[in-house]
Amino acid sequence: MKAEIIAVGTELLLGQIVNTNAQFLSQGLAGLGIDVYFQTVVGDNAQRLRQAIEVARTRADFILFTGGIGPTQDDLTKDTLADYLGRQLLIHEPSMSKIEHFFSSRGSHMVESNRRQANMIEGSVPLANETGLAVGNAIVQDGTLYALLPGPPREMKPMFNGPLRQWLIDVSGQHNLLYSRILRFAGIGESSLEAELIDIIDGQTDPTVAPYAKEGEVVIRVSTKAGSAVEALGKIDRTVALIRERVGQYMYAEEDIPLEEAVLRKLRDKRLKLSCAESCSGGLLSELITSVPGSSGEFLGSIVTYTNTMKHKLLGIPLSQLEGPGAPGAISESTAQLMAQRVNELTGSDWGIAITGVAGPTESEGKPVGLVYIALARRGGETTVHSMKWSGNRSSVRIRSAKTALYRLWELLKDET
Amino acid sequence: MKAEIIAVGTELLLGQIVNTNAQFLSQGLAGLGIDVYFQTVVGDNAQRLRQAIEVARTRADFILFTGGIGPTQDDLTKDTLADYLGRQLLIHEPSMSKIEHFFSSRGSHMVESNRRQANMIEGSVPLANETGLAVGNAIVQDGTLYALLPGPPREMKPMFNGPLRQWLIDVSGQHNLLYSRILRFAGIGESSLEAELIDIIDGQTDPTVAPYAKEGEVVIRVSTKAGSAVEALGKIDRTVALIRERVGQYMYAEEDIPLEEAVLRKLRDKRLKLSCAESCSGGLLSELITSVPGSSGEFLGSIVTYTNTMKHKLLGIPLSQLEGPGAPGAISESTAQLMAQRVNELTGSDWGIAITGVAGPTESEGKPVGLVYIALARRGGETTVHSMKWSGNRSSVRIRSAKTALYRLWELLKDET
Repeated sequence: MKAEIIAVGTELLLGQIVNTNAQFLSQGLAGLGIDVYFQTVVGDNAQRLRQAIEVARTRADFILFTGGIGPTQDDLTKDTLADYLGRQLLIHEPSMSKIEHFFSSRGSHMVESNRRQANMIEGSVPLANETGLAVGNAIVQDGTLYALLPGPPREMKPMFNGPLRQWLIDVSGQHNLLYSRILRFAGIGESSLEAELIDIIDGQTDPTVAPYAKEGEVVIRVSTKAGSAVEALGKIDRTVALIRERVGQYMYAEEDIPLEEAVLRKLRDKRLKLSCAESCSGGLLSELITSVPGSSGEFLGSIVTYTNTMKHKLLGIPLSQLEGPGAPGAISESTAQLMAQRVNELTGSDWGIAITGVAGPTESEGKPVGLVYIALARRGGETTVHSMKWSGNRSSVRIRSAKTALYRLWELLKDET
Repeated sequence: MKAEIIAVGTELLLGQIVNTNAQFLSQGLAGLGIDVYFQTVVGDNAQRLRQAIEVARTRADFILFTGGIGPTQDDLTKDTLADYLGRQLLIHEPSMSKIEHFFSSRGSHMVESNRRQANMIEGSVPLANETGLAVGNAIVQDGTLYALLPGPPREMKPMFNGPLRQWLIDVSGQHNLLYSRILRFAGIGESSLEAELIDIIDGQTDPTVAPYAKEGEVVIRVSTKAGSAVEALGKIDRTVALIRERVGQYMYAEEDIPLEEAVLRKLRDKRLKLSCAESCSGGLLSELITSVPGSSGEFLGSIVTYTNTMKHKLLGIPLSQLEGPGAPGAISESTAQLMAQRVNELTGSDWGIAITGVAGPTESEGKPVGLVYIALARRGGETTVHSMKWSGNRSSVRIRSAKTALYRLWELLKDET
C-alpha cells in the first residue's frame, strides 16, 4: 500500500512550527509495513487543500491527513474532504455529548464553533480522541483509504496508535504483517552504537535493523514481515541475541519505554526509593521521572537548588564548600557528592542522585559550559561521581545530564543484588 | 510569488529524520515576502521526484529543492531536474577544483562519485557552498524559478542566507517585504481568543491576523507587506492596538518569548525572587523556569514533594493536614496554600508558587484526575489559591497546571507596584 501524508496548517508553511507529525506518522506507517511515498504540507485554504487531495489521489492508496479538524474557522479538512468525496457532514452524537459535557462540567460557556469538532463525514468510521475533543474520521471510497487525525501531537499520537492502527489492520486485510521489536540504549552515542553493529545493520535484510537517535538515548528497531507471530518472533530473537552479545551492556530495555521508566521498574523490583538534588538540571530530572505514571511509588521528591544560599539552606551544604578562596565551589565533584548524600539523608531514600554543572550559555565559577558532575549516593554505601564534558546548547546539556544520571543509576541497580 | 519546497530524501519518508529544513526555508521565504503554498517530501527516486516537479510546476512560480545533490548514487535531484528541463549536466570547474583540492590536501583517496557534486544544470547560476562540497544551482525557465540546495542543514542554511537570497532578490526584483509581530497569550484558550477577535481575524486582509495554539498558550501573528519598516510598523501598531483593547489582559508579550521568560523579566524589574513547591507537576514548573538562560537571577529553587511524608519532612506541612479522618488531604486548597507559604519561608523568596493535584492516570485521595490547586503566596502579603479541573492526560494536566501557575503570577506581578 502506498501512502501520502497531508499535513494541513498555515503555521507549517510559515515555518512557525516544524512538521514532527510527518515524522511520527511515517515511522508508524513503516511499522505497519505501509510505504510512505510523499509527504505534503498545505495551508488552511480549502481550494489548495482540494488541489492537494486531487494530486494525492493519483499517486497514493491511502491518504492520511493531520490537522485542520479543530473548532476554528480555519479548520477545513473535514469540510473539504467531504466536499471532494461528495458526502455530507453529519454530527457524531457521542462526540457532541462529550464536548457539551466538557464545557458544562467546567461551568464555562461553550463557543458555538466547538460543535464543529463532532463533525463526521457521512459513512466514515469515527476515531475516538482520548486526549481532546475533535473526533477523527476514516473512510474508504473507490478503493482509496482516507483518514483524518488532529494536528496537536498529544491528540494525534494516541489516535494513530489506537483506533486508526486497528482500522488499518482491519481494512487492509494484510496477511504478511510487519512485526518489530524496539531495543532501547543509553550511555552510548548513536554513531558509536552504529559502528559496533555496522555489519549487522548493513548485512541483514530480514529482519532489518534500523538505529535512530532520541535525546540522550538511542533506539534500534528490528523488523520483519512474517505470516505468523511465532515465525516473526524466532527471526527477531536471533537478531536481538546478536545485538545483545555486542552491546548488551547499554541495552536497558527490549521494549519501547523511556530510560526513566526502566529505572523506576528496577527500583520497584528491589523495593528501593529515590530522591534527587538538582542544580543545573533545574528540575528536569524530576520532571522526567514523574512523567511516568505511578512514579510516586518509588520517587520521593527532589530539591532544586539554583543558588549557593539554597544549597546551604535546603541541603545543608557548608558555605565554606561553595564560596570563598580555595573552596571547591558549587560545580565540583565534592559538592555533587555532598548533594547526593544530603538529599538521601533528608528524604530517607535509598538512592540519591545529584546533578551540578554549567548548562550555559555562559560559564560559571570560571568553569566552562558543559562541565557537569553527576553523583549517585547509596544509603549506607558508596557514592560515585561522574564528570561529564558536554558540547551543545543549554537544553542539550540539561537533557543529556539527566539521562546520563538515570543510565548510571540503572547500571548500578543492575549489579545490586 | 508562490513557492513550493520539495525536500528530497527517503530518510524523511521513513521518519528517520524530521524535516526541519522545510521550517527554516519557510521562515526564510516568509522573511523575503515569498508565500509558501506547499511543502512536499519525496524519496530518492527519479520517477517520483519528476512527478513531484510536474505537480509543483502547475501550482508554484518558485520551486525550491533541498537534498539529493550529494555524491552518492541516491543523489538524483540535479539529474532529474536537468532531464525535466531538457538541459545537459555540465561540470562547474571551480567546484571541481575545490573537491579535488579537498581530498588531495588531506592525502585521502577521492571516490569517483564525489565529482558529481560539481555538476551544474546547463545555464544555471552556481550557488557557492561555504561549508561543503556540493555546489547549488539556480535557474529560471519559462517564468518558473528553480533552486537546488543541499540537504544537510549546516550546508543548506548558509547557501540560502547568502547566494540564494541574493539571487532571489535580483531575479524577482521585489521591493515589498513581509513584516510581522508575534503576540503571546496565556490564561485563555485558542477558541475563546478567536471568538473574541473573530471579526478582526476574518475582516482584516492587511495586516493579516493568524492565531495558533501552543501547549498551554496561544500565539497570534500579525503580518503585513510593506515598502518600508516604518510603513509596516504603523499598520501593525494599529492592529495590535485593536487586539489589545479586546484581550489585552491575556497578552503577556508583544514578542516571541515563552510565558516563563515574561514572568522572569517582571520579577527582575521588580527585584523579586521566586521559589516553588511542586507535587503533581513533579518538577515541570522548575524545569520550565530554568530552561530560560539567566533564570538563576530570580529563581531560587524548588521543593518537589511526591509523597505526604516528604510534604511533612521537607516543607513542614503537619501530617494532620495531610492524612487521617477529616484531614483536608494533600490535594486541597489549604495544603496548596501551606505549601506556597512554607516554601517562601524556607527559601526567603518574595513569591512562592505551589501546585498540588491529580495528574492521573488514576484518581488519588478519592479526588478526580485533573483536579489541581495552584497557590501563590506573597511574602508578608496574601496567598491566593486557584482550583482547576482539567480534562486530558497526565502530560497535559501537568503542562497546563504549570503554565496556569505562571500566568497567575504574571497577572499578580502586573498589578504589583
